[in-house]
Amino acid sequence: MPLAGPTIEPVSIQPLSPTTRSTPRRHSERGRSERAELYAVLDEALICHLGVVLDGAPVVLPTCFGRLDDTLYLHGSSGASSLRAGHGTPVCVTVTLLDALVYARSVFSHSANYRSAVVHGTARAVTDTDEKLAGLRAVVEHTTPGSWLHARQPTKKELAATGVLALDLAEASVKIRSGPPIDEEPDVEAGTSWAGVVPLRTSFGAPEPCPLLPPDTAVPPHVLRRRAVS
Amino acid sequence: MPLAGPTIEPVSIQPLSPTTRSTPRRHSERGRSERAELYAVLDEALICHLGVVLDGAPVVLPTCFGRLDDTLYLHGSSGASSLRAGHGTPVCVTVTLLDALVYARSVFSHSANYRSAVVHGTARAVTDTDEKLAGLRAVVEHTTPGSWLHARQPTKKELAATGVLALDLAEASVKIRSGPPIDEEPDVEAGTSWAGVVPLRTSFGAPEPCPLLPPDTAVPPHVLRRRAVS
Repeated sequence: MPLAGPTIEPVSIQPLSPTTRSTPRRHSERGRSERAELYAVLDEALICHLGVVLDGAPVVLPTCFGRLDDTLYLHGSSGASSLRAGHGTPVCVTVTLLDALVYARSVFSHSANYRSAVVHGTARAVTDTDEKLAGLRAVVEHTTPGSWLHARQPTKKELAATGVLALDLAEASVKIRSGPPIDEEPDVEAGTSWAGVVPLRTSFGAPEPCPLLPPDTAVPPHVLRRRAVS
Repeated sequence: MPLAGPTIEPVSIQPLSPTTRSTPRRHSERGRSERAELYAVLDEALICHLGVVLDGAPVVLPTCFGRLDDTLYLHGSSGASSLRAGHGTPVCVTVTLLDALVYARSVFSHSANYRSAVVHGTARAVTDTDEKLAGLRAVVEHTTPGSWLHARQPTKKELAATGVLALDLAEASVKIRSGPPIDEEPDVEAGTSWAGVVPLRTSFGAPEPCPLLPPDTAVPPHVLRRRAVS
């Protein structure tokens, strides 16, 4: 994610499509490690951006998601149209973790440190009740771990009113940029500009109880743990 | 962004397309305030997600951006293909600020507090040198304020190697969810689950100087200020 420079930068691209994965048999351990990196990026992110094509134009919407092995489960974020458009048609799900801003000696070499995962595929609307429950549970447990068993679970009616999309993690790529700025040698030697990295952190604040809750209600452990994770 | 429930939730949708804006003349102050909300969401976000259509399929990539009045300037994030695809074809640029996780008494009512802006339009590749410089400056100053004047500015060659897209903020919508969970009354009365909000914060850490910098180099004010902004 260069700010001003060209699109060539020190990122590692790990294609995870079955074709690429299945080719280098001697590097099966690398295959695992690539998949592990995909899982790591997906599992750390709180939201994803779902892209669909509606009437020939792209629509990108933020939404919550969860993962069960090699299946991504999504809940429609804003309007059933994206869910309907996503069913049986090509979608793209992108997850981005912004780690740092990279200040270089030249404007051209400014960049950002990040980890992103891009998943391409054909999503399917989940209709089987058991899979729907499992998918929803994955979404809820990904975003608010512990909530599935703590809160009241969905009724049949609620479940029917809920749309869930499933997307196989078959065709995916991970990009990672990390480390200090990469400047041209004359710029380094000139020594006229500061260069370095300003890291970004996402943290959870103190839980704010619902005003309708009795004042002495204790915050349960699964909510307190959420804060410790960050 | 409900986690498990339906797609209807207490969000305010503010269409900002010219048609909608121009219709209610008596509410010109609302038009201004909607535009101000759009600006506020865009100006606070560090990255956006750019959606384009490539060979009939959506592609969503993270990228840095900047704003000059009612024009969004984007720098291609990963591969010139997205920039080329974006030129003269429909694009969608989405920006999302995740403010809190919303723990409800029922799984169905779990949600997230967020502010998002979705911009639709036809992007154009910026070719005019002056506009390209202005657009790049907007991107750099949006992401790393103060860097444009502090760092070495682009050479002609660097500028030629840089792709910049411009997108008018003509058709855009803002969605905001805030506040406590909205539960069904029987769930509130049952009193068996905790409910509330866990806020999320993004902050900047201490600047980490480039290892090639002389050890006694002071961190300049514009970098130190970045941290204070969060």
